[in-house]
Formats: sequence, C-alpha cells, structure tokens
Amino acid sequence: MYTVCVRDHCMIAHSFKGEVFGPAQRLHGATYVVDVELRRPTLDEDGIVVDIGAAGQLLHDVLADLNYKNLDDEPSMAGVNTTTEYIAFEIFERMALRIRQGELGESGTKLTSMRVTLHESHIAWAAYESSLTPATLE
Amino acid sequence: MYTVCVRDHCMIAHSFKGEVFGPAQRLHGATYVVDVELRRPTLDEDGIVVDIGAAGQLLHDVLADLNYKNLDDEPSMAGVNTTTEYIAFEIFERMALRIRQGELGESGTKLTSMRVTLHESHIAWAAYESSLTPATLE
Amino acid sequence: MYTVCVRDHCMIAHSFKGEVFGPAQRLHGATYVVDVELRRPTLDEDGIVVDIGAAGQLLHDVLADLNYKNLDDEPSMAGVNTTTEYIAFEIFERMALRIRQGELGESGTKLTSMRVTLHESHIAWAAYESSLTPATLE
Amino acid sequence: MYTVCVRDHCMIAHSFKGEVFGPAQRLHGATYVVDVELRRPTLDEDGIVVDIGAAGQLLHDVLADLNYKNLDDEPSMAGVNTTTEYIAFEIFERMALRIRQGELGESGTKLTSMRVTLHESHIAWAAYESSLTPATLE
Amino acid sequence: MYTVCVRDHCMIAHSFKGEVFGPAQRLHGATYVVDVELRRPTLDEDGIVVDIGAAGQLLHDVLADLNYKNLDDEPSMAGVNTTTEYIAFEIFERMALRIRQGELGESGTKLTSMRVTLHESHIAWAAYESSLTPATLE
Amino acid sequence: MYTVCVRDHCMIAHSFKGEVFGPAQRLHGATYVVDVELRRPTLDEDGIVVDIGAAGQLLHDVLADLNYKNLDDEPSMAGVNTTTEYIAFEIFERMALRIRQGELGESGTKLTSMRVTLHESHIAWAAYESSLTPATLE
Repeated sequence: MYTVCVRDHCMIAHSFKGEVFGPAQRLHGATYVVDVELRRPTLDEDGIVVDIGAAGQLLHDVLADLNYKNLDDEPSMAGVNTTTEYIAFEIFERMALRIRQGELGESGTKLTSMRVTLHESHIAWAAYESSLTPATLE
Repeated sequence: MYTVCVRDHCMIAHSFKGEVFGPAQRLHGATYVVDVELRRPTLDEDGIVVDIGAAGQLLHDVLADLNYKNLDDEPSMAGVNTTTEYIAFEIFERMALRIRQGELGESGTKLTSMRVTLHESHIAWAAYESSLTPATLE
Repeated sequence: MYTVCVRDHCMIAHSFKGEVFGPAQRLHGATYVVDVELRRPTLDEDGIVVDIGAAGQLLHDVLADLNYKNLDDEPSMAGVNTTTEYIAFEIFERMALRIRQGELGESGTKLTSMRVTLHESHIAWAAYESSLTPATLE
Repeated sequence: MYTVCVRDHCMIAHSFKGEVFGPAQRLHGATYVVDVELRRPTLDEDGIVVDIGAAGQLLHDVLADLNYKNLDDEPSMAGVNTTTEYIAFEIFERMALRIRQGELGESGTKLTSMRVTLHESHIAWAAYESSLTPATLE
Repeated sequence: MYTVCVRDHCMIAHSFKGEVFGPAQRLHGATYVVDVELRRPTLDEDGIVVDIGAAGQLLHDVLADLNYKNLDDEPSMAGVNTTTEYIAFEIFERMALRIRQGELGESGTKLTSMRVTLHESHIAWAAYESSLTPATLE
Repeated sequence: MYTVCVRDHCMIAHSFKGEVFGPAQRLHGATYVVDVELRRPTLDEDGIVVDIGAAGQLLHDVLADLNYKNLDDEPSMAGVNTTTEYIAFEIFERMALRIRQGELGESGTKLTSMRVTLHESHIAWAAYESSLTPATLE
C-alpha cells in the first residue's frame, strides 16, 4: 500500500457543551495542524499516488472554509461539539466529497482510503480514517 | 475509525542480558516519550472518543509507577529484558487493565484498540498495539 | 551561559483590530506551545540553573490564567491586539513578576535573562526576550 | 503487534517526466529522512523485535547506494519517475531482499510486515508498506 | 527584543568542489526547510513585529528563485560552493534587499536583525544572522 | 555570524543528591539528544564553517565516552550532580579540548563560540554556551 501525506493548518475558536469538558466549555480556540494521508495499492502511470501539489491545494481550500472562524457560529456544525475528533471527521467528509467530484483528477478516484489527523498541541492529537470505496465516493 | 492520542514521558535506568545488546548490557538509562492512541469506530454522545483529560491523567499515573526507577530492581519485571518494545507492551497491559476497571468511564469501555509508542531517541522508537475486545477487557 | 527550558501550552480565542490582519480580524483562536528559557552564567550549589520542576509548575500556573479563555474579554489586555508577540511579552512579564516574588526560590533570583517563545503553528512562532537585571527584578 | 522503527537519511538529485510535475520536471533534489518500521506479532527470546543496531546499520547500507547521487543516472531506476512514493517502494524492496538474505539474523525472518516512510519536507511525506510473508521473503 | 519566525522550504540539486566534501562532490540534492527570524526591540502600533503573512510571502518568493533548480547552473552562484551555510547567507542577502526595498512595509524598516536557518536533515542545520542596521539596509 | 549544528544522542543512568530533586534522587536514566552549534564570523575557502562530517564524528566520539554508562560511577564526574545543564557543560569542555587539539582541522581553530544543547524530553532541555577565544582554545 502506498501513502502520500500533506500538511497544512487552521486556527479556530469554539466552545463545548457538557460537564466532561470542564474549562473547555468556555469560548477558547485552537491551532489544528492537519495531516491528510491518501492511500492506494498501486501507483499511476506517472509513478505517483496523486498529484501532491493538487492534494495540498485541496486541503488548503477545505481548511479555508474553517480558518479564522468561530465554529460556534457555523451553521453546518450547529448543535454538535466541534471536538478535535469531530473536526477530523468533518474535514474527511469535505475532502472525500471534493475528491469524488474530481478535484484530484483520475488518480484521485483510485484512492482506497484516507486518514485525517489534527494535532492540537505537542501532547495531543486526534484522527479519523475510513475507506474510500466506490460506494463511499458515489 | 476515530483515534485520540495523548503524550507523556518517563525516565528510567536499566540493563540488558544477551550478547545482542553489546554495550547496552551495562547499566544505562532512557527517556521514553510515550504516545498512547485510543480507538473506537464511533464517537460518544459528547462527540469524543474518550475524555482526553482523563486519558492523559491515566497515562501519567501509569508512567508514575515506572518513572525515576531502575527497572532492574522492579519485581514485576524480574527476569525479563526491559527493552523498549517490552515496556510498550507492559504499559499497554497496565493501561488496558485500568481502562477495564473503569478509569476512563463508560466511553472507555467502547474502545476497540490501543497502540502504545515509546520514542527512545530522535532515530528510534518501538510500539505495541492490540485490540481491546471485551475478551481482552474482561 | 547556562539555559534551561520548559514547555507547556494554552488554547485561547481572540480577534485583531487593523486591516493588516485580514481574516484574522474575525474571532478565531490558537494553540500556543510555549517555551520558557531561563538563563544564568553559573550553576547553583545543586548543579542546576533553577529547579526545573518548579519552573514547569510556574509556567503552568501562568498559562492557567490564559487557558480556555477569549482574550478579547480579558480586562488586563483591554485595548491591545493580543498578537503572538504581544502574548509572549505578557507571559514574560507575568513570569518575571513571580520569579521576583520568589516562586523559583533563591536560585531564581540569580537568573540574568529569560526568553519566551510561542509556537502558533508548524510554520510560525514569535518570541520575547529580555534581561532579568536586579533593576528589572525589583 | 510489535513494531520497531529506525531513522536515517539520504540526499539525492533527480528530475521528473510528465506535465503533472510542473517545475519539478527540472533537475532538482531532496533530502529524504527515512523511517523503516519492522513488525512481528511476538518478541524473540531476547525480548526484541530484531536487533535495532543491526536494523539501523542495514538501513544505512541501503541508503548508501542512493546517497549523494543523481537518480537520473542510476541504471537500476532507468525509465521510471523516482518519486518519493516510488523510492519508498524501492527501499522497501532492497531492505526485504537483504532481510531475506539473513542480514537481520534469525529474528529478521520472523518479521511479518514492513513500512518505509520518506519525509521530503516539513509538509509532505510518502510511504510504502507490505507484508513480509515467507512467499515475499523467498 | 521581539522575534517573529516564518518557515518554508525549497528543493535543489548541486555539487561541491573540494576534497573535504567527499561523496558530496557528486551531483546530489537537498530539501532545505528554511526558518527566517525577524527581530526588533519594540512592536509597531498594530502590536506586531511585522505583517507575518507578508513575511511568509516574501520568503516564499525568495525561495521560488531557488526552488526546483540545479544550483550548479545558477549564474548568480557561479564559482562558489553552495553549501548550506552559504545558501543561508544568500537567502539573508536577498531577504534584506527586498525588505530594504519596502516589501515588508514601514514596519519592515524597523527590523534590527535577521537570522536565516536551513535544516538540511534531522541531524544537521546551518544558519546566518546579522544586524539590519540602516547602513546594511541602505 | 555563521552557525552549523550537528545532532547525536546518548543514553545514561544516574542519580542526584539534594532534596530539590525529589524522586530523581533515585537511580534513573535519560536519553539526551545533543545539538552542538559551532560558530564563526566568516566561511573558510571551501565555503563552510567547518567540515560537518568531521564535526558529527567528533560529537559521536565525545558521546561514546558517556553512552550506555551509569554516570554515578564515572571517576571524572565524582562528587557532582550530573544534571542536564552540567552534562551540557561537560560535553562543551570535551568538544572544546579536542577542537583545540586540531580534530576539526584548521577551520576548527577559527570557531569563535559553541553551544551544546541537551534535549531530555519533549518538554525540557538545557544548554551551555561560551566563546571559544584563543585563550579558551590554548
């Protein structure tokens, strides 16, 4: 199995609902350094998993929709706790949709799985990964 | 699959038995920077894998039993080579036991696998991972 | 010259005033991974710059006053842009005050300079450093 | 499952063929920081996955065949784009061959899988991983 | 003293002349992860050292002139060994010229020193730093 | 000013004397990831600060005298607390002596200062730096 990974980041504000979050129930924020790993079992005719420049640009575009925002005010995330693991899932879904729509070209459609990791500090990170089967991509 | 990871460290002395270890047969020591990854397929009702603060505290408590010690004198490790890979396994077992005993609450019982990684220098690390099936947790 | 450095982090929300900040004028947030370097020309009788455990605890306490907060609502920072470089200065001042008040003991009074670095992402950081002369410490 | 990982690096020149590579079609170069993860389900009688010193030396030897070279002139890579993901595969194959030939001793023959990761910058890496079944090792 | 730092990278090919370089006399290459630290004793009226977005863009532009090139063919570097320390100096000079020409605005003219660090692997880096006095900037 | 830096590591056991050390009074150990920065104001005729390969080898040799040892048994360190900051000083002295003895060649005698940094974990490090004046080198 081959993997390529690109890294970028975003900076957001948010708050959590629930006693388990303690002081994080207050409005605060985070820098998320985001790694997206893209996987397929074989390389394409150019010898790559996918155009890494295009992958980095796609990640940058997806993060631009979150960057410098207060997630508490995001209609698309209303009523959910925007925890690190949830945002990893959300970025996965947004990346998967745009890959399905062809933004990583023909090679992107051959990806079989993806993993999104969000580093929130030097001592904690969270990730979401899943297959990118045709069913998932449809 | 969702993952959360917490990091902490401990500093120990030990020696190894066996020609394969060369100069590491002498009494020496190591800093282990320890990453514990906790995994489950769905988030709980708070939108988390597990309380990350509680997970960090549990790791800290488990490492406190090893920290600032000479492992050659630890009764629980008598007769074994306390290699990096072995200590990864040992920390896994201690974490798994306390998770089974409820120290990470209800959400902790939904964890399906765990990975413990020990970074011993900038050029070497070792890990142990396994499922946390009910059988394992029982 | 000897230096010891301790690391911790905090997670805050804030917004900036001024066209130069572009989209960062919106309410957003950041994780700051904070390094505090403490310097003196000679070691004390124990062979240390300062008690590193106490230094880490002091940094943790100073960051606790900022952690999980919206800095736009902090009275002590009213009317200023809480940029990374400004917060580095602010943490320097708070650390210096408490060192002067004796929180790092006798050895702390022998420190001659300090540097506070805030890593805001994998591609950007800011720092403030200054001497800790008796005049500064008075 | 147990894993040990060793890290080393090499510095090479190369160029790519294909419009997808844009300016990387020109002769340029890269530092690859290489991580090799070696895995097996049980430890040997010494309590290790494999002699980590031998593993590091083997990686160093494999990289020595690539280090300080222009890969465009390497007969063994003629006609292929020496992308990061391809070189990860190539290093995997060379490591697997020498492990099969016994360079990591008896314990090396018990390895069940291997992963080779090449970090090409602070924002991009690629990897190749596969099982090391007896069929693969034969 | 305040510092802000931005990071970017470039990937180049080159060779060295001189027995001291051993195998690095052959055509090879490197990824340079480049940190540029910008310093001034006071913040501007916006509370910043300099517009960090503009600083990052300027570094990106300066590196674009080197990126994906064989430095042996660069007329501006003819007859010199393009060692890591030399390229650090070269990037310093190019940054200083464009800062002097106003590309970082009014605040850029208040910078008093700069440091350029090139990380060439996980075990080696080189840097060049100097004051940015009005004389230097003229 | 130019700087080159090389990195290596060593793994040692030791214990401390003094109440300030708390549990670290027990026999324990550490991995020290060691950075040595070498500085001079001008490059030599080859365009380098010093032969970086020779510098890395010298550091490796100096660390070999400490590696895999219990520092409590080292005659050269009898009666001192081998704290991180003290060992940084000790490595500085040993490096300086061998540079003075010519192990880094003619270019080594032009070095004007050196800094030795020991990373003992992901959250703490210590350093010692000093000039390498002719007086120091004599």
